[in-house]
Amino acid sequence: MQPTAAFLIIGNEILSGRTQDKNLAFLGAKLAEKGIALAEVRVVRDVEQEIIGAVKALSAKYTYVFTSGGIGPTHDDITAATLAKAFDAPLALHPEALRRLEKHYETSTQPFNEARRKMAYIPKGAALIDNPVSAAPGFIIKNLYVMAGVPSIFQAMVANVLADIQGGAPTLSRTVTTNITEGTLAKELGEIQAAFPLVEIGSYPHIRNGKLGVALVARSTDTTLLTEAEKAIQALVVEKGGELLEG
Amino acid sequence: MQPTAAFLIIGNEILSGRTQDKNLAFLGAKLAEKGIALAEVRVVRDVEQEIIGAVKALSAKYTYVFTSGGIGPTHDDITAATLAKAFDAPLALHPEALRRLEKHYETSTQPFNEARRKMAYIPKGAALIDNPVSAAPGFIIKNLYVMAGVPSIFQAMVANVLADIQGGAPTLSRTVTTNITEGTLAKELGEIQAAFPLVEIGSYPHIRNGKLGVALVARSTDTTLLTEAEKAIQALVVEKGGELLEG
Repeated sequence: MQPTAAFLIIGNEILSGRTQDKNLAFLGAKLAEKGIALAEVRVVRDVEQEIIGAVKALSAKYTYVFTSGGIGPTHDDITAATLAKAFDAPLALHPEALRRLEKHYETSTQPFNEARRKMAYIPKGAALIDNPVSAAPGFIIKNLYVMAGVPSIFQAMVANVLADIQGGAPTLSRTVTTNITEGTLAKELGEIQAAFPLVEIGSYPHIRNGKLGVALVARSTDTTLLTEAEKAIQALVVEKGGELLEG
Repeated sequence: MQPTAAFLIIGNEILSGRTQDKNLAFLGAKLAEKGIALAEVRVVRDVEQEIIGAVKALSAKYTYVFTSGGIGPTHDDITAATLAKAFDAPLALHPEALRRLEKHYETSTQPFNEARRKMAYIPKGAALIDNPVSAAPGFIIKNLYVMAGVPSIFQAMVANVLADIQGGAPTLSRTVTTNITEGTLAKELGEIQAAFPLVEIGSYPHIRNGKLGVALVARSTDTTLLTEAEKAIQALVVEKGGELLEG
């Protein structure tokens, strides 16, 4: 069995539509490679009770919970203080976090002031996640991995974190893309799904050059079954008069 | 007070990282214009109990719930049947939905078969949401607006839906972008936030041409307060030696 995971995105800017989230697709793909099943995502506002409700529910339900957002120096960065409250672990100055921040700002044109010092306070007992871009670390508390929202920093933190945690068998995928639409092959595709219970088959319509087509995606941890399912899907597409397309 | 909303994205393809969601940012921006506060988003798998758990929680908590995904003809499209179960409203053939589908397939190269006929079954008592692209309608049940996941169809459905529902005062926003980083002005920005409790001020760092900068975003339903807050933020940036940048 693969371990499971949830992703909690903390941030009004995602909900307002101002910022297009890019972290979910990145994390989902990396977790699949690592053999961890991303089973749920939530996006909540920068509001204490909303964050607490979500982390408690997700932390209890899944093996791992990854979060993004709210670990900076401004008034709307409330993630560390909120998690301290949620897990009854008071905020404490982490000496190594302070050392990394001091070192970073030695060579910066920006001052290391009180607001930036705030980023060295994390819930007591939490371990650091390295931030190679702007020094302010993420942290690990219980089964939560608390990371920055800026995509380049988030991605670097995910790489660090995934090197250290336990996954399962990687989920592999095969895609069959065609120019006929899903209703034409729905019945037989359902029969293929029934014949391959250990392969998850999804049907994802798209519009290309103004015309509807579909990508049929098979996912499994078993390469042999995956190849058999892929061949069955390709044969179905051809039988129904569809072309096999790239991508 | 603005009505509140949640968005439920139903789809393994978003969680696997295969498909980059584009509907959230679109919906968030449209709801802000309409004066509806998008307060929470969840992404769940194509699994009955996960969908039921999420719709019940969100339907009880928010004025409106919008969903995307799972209303097509294939085996993994379980949204209509699952909502029928969740709200004790059996699936029933909707005559107008059937008429629209029959008409659409009269001029199609694809057959109107049993799988496509399935898309005319919606929970009893639900009203239709028009699909100008591929005919298969969305539907409205209780406070849920059930829509397709394909972005162009989702967007058309959102436009139809928002024309008919009640919003509040639109949320307006102003953005001040600068090349200094948020820690430099965090303290005073917090003071501006405290002085403008009816304006929500967010600080969103970004990396441009390899350098950290920040976008300071003020949001409010009150234009006068918004303009005052924007001026205060601009003055702060200039005082701290930052440039006022475009975008």
